[in-house]
Amino acid sequence: MPKLRVQNFAISLDGYGAGPDQNVEHPLGVGGERLHEWAFATRSMRRMHGMEGGETGLDDDFAARGETEIAATIVGRNMFGPIRGSWGDESWTGWWGDDPPFHHPVFVLTHHPRAPLTMEAGTTFHFVDDGIEAALEQALDAAGGADVRLGGGVATIQQYLRARLIDEMHVAIVPTLLGRGERLFDHLDRGPDGYECVEFACSPSVAHVRLARA
Amino acid sequence: MPKLRVQNFAISLDGYGAGPDQNVEHPLGVGGERLHEWAFATRSMRRMHGMEGGETGLDDDFAARGETEIAATIVGRNMFGPIRGSWGDESWTGWWGDDPPFHHPVFVLTHHPRAPLTMEAGTTFHFVDDGIEAALEQALDAAGGADVRLGGGVATIQQYLRARLIDEMHVAIVPTLLGRGERLFDHLDRGPDGYECVEFACSPSVAHVRLARA
Repeated sequence: MPKLRVQNFAISLDGYGAGPDQNVEHPLGVGGERLHEWAFATRSMRRMHGMEGGETGLDDDFAARGETEIAATIVGRNMFGPIRGSWGDESWTGWWGDDPPFHHPVFVLTHHPRAPLTMEAGTTFHFVDDGIEAALEQALDAAGGADVRLGGGVATIQQYLRARLIDEMHVAIVPTLLGRGERLFDHLDRGPDGYECVEFACSPSVAHVRLARA
Repeated sequence: MPKLRVQNFAISLDGYGAGPDQNVEHPLGVGGERLHEWAFATRSMRRMHGMEGGETGLDDDFAARGETEIAATIVGRNMFGPIRGSWGDESWTGWWGDDPPFHHPVFVLTHHPRAPLTMEAGTTFHFVDDGIEAALEQALDAAGGADVRLGGGVATIQQYLRARLIDEMHVAIVPTLLGRGERLFDHLDRGPDGYECVEFACSPSVAHVRLARA
């Protein structure tokens, strides 16, 4: 059965998956980029962004897994852009430029309809305005038997966790303190009931945890 | 300069330092004992509680550090017992029986005066009803040049963090989800500003982090 997986989702020691005050200058919120330094140091993540070099080892293994057997991605609206409300002139085409690092269909959750947007090298953004289940259904269809990645952000993951729709979740704990921001394990009603830790491994810079639905 | 140190303070993946609903049957809150299994498996912690055997290695090294160069401890009232309000007949003498595992003076924060309570083998409980600074001053005096351990619980550590009185803090992240309870990094006003991670090391079961005041 194809899975819905969260991969390489980094949180701080104090539990934040993004810094506060996201805007065009701070796609990850203020200070949020500290959560991703480990990933951008890996060979896999650098390759995914068209760069050479990078580290191999445990962090790279996890970074690579985030691409493996994945053929569609779901993201919340804030992961696509800083625009709130209607799409306006539709000139915003994502944080990533002409060639976003997905290279497969990406389903963007939104309350505001918008026509699909085809970018370079296989990335098409589909805007889904009828809920998280519909987005998952469309993404699974598009993935054609492969897994679907749930990209984030925090609020989107919480919605899917509350609905018990996530099969696996890889969280990378980064030993830094953000102090403020969006906390991953929050607003979960009965908590993350029904999920358990099935893998725990650390590099010198990150503690990797894989949770699975029991 | 003698330091105020938090040692071996365990939190769950979702950030809880204790489970919910502490009472006589659940000194660590419901489910909270899962946070301490790693510590009670170590040789140092077993020895401290009068037991033989136990594991050596990284977890044990950290467990041992929690006893090293420490000559007084401060604890919040809930760490001493489940009684709220006045002390009643004073028959409660702590969670630990006749020989508590401190073997040095312990300062219990409370709003309710009580005479000192001398237990076996060097442990005396002093009840401090004039605030966290007074407790620290008395504990530093009692420690005679050695460090003071801040035992917890969560609310007490938060008080000392807000006052920037903690010099070092060792947090052990345990890969389990509690879902509810008392979150360590919460109610911190400006967050843990001014603290940074100075050590990060993992065993197969715990991610150890040492924070220090910058």
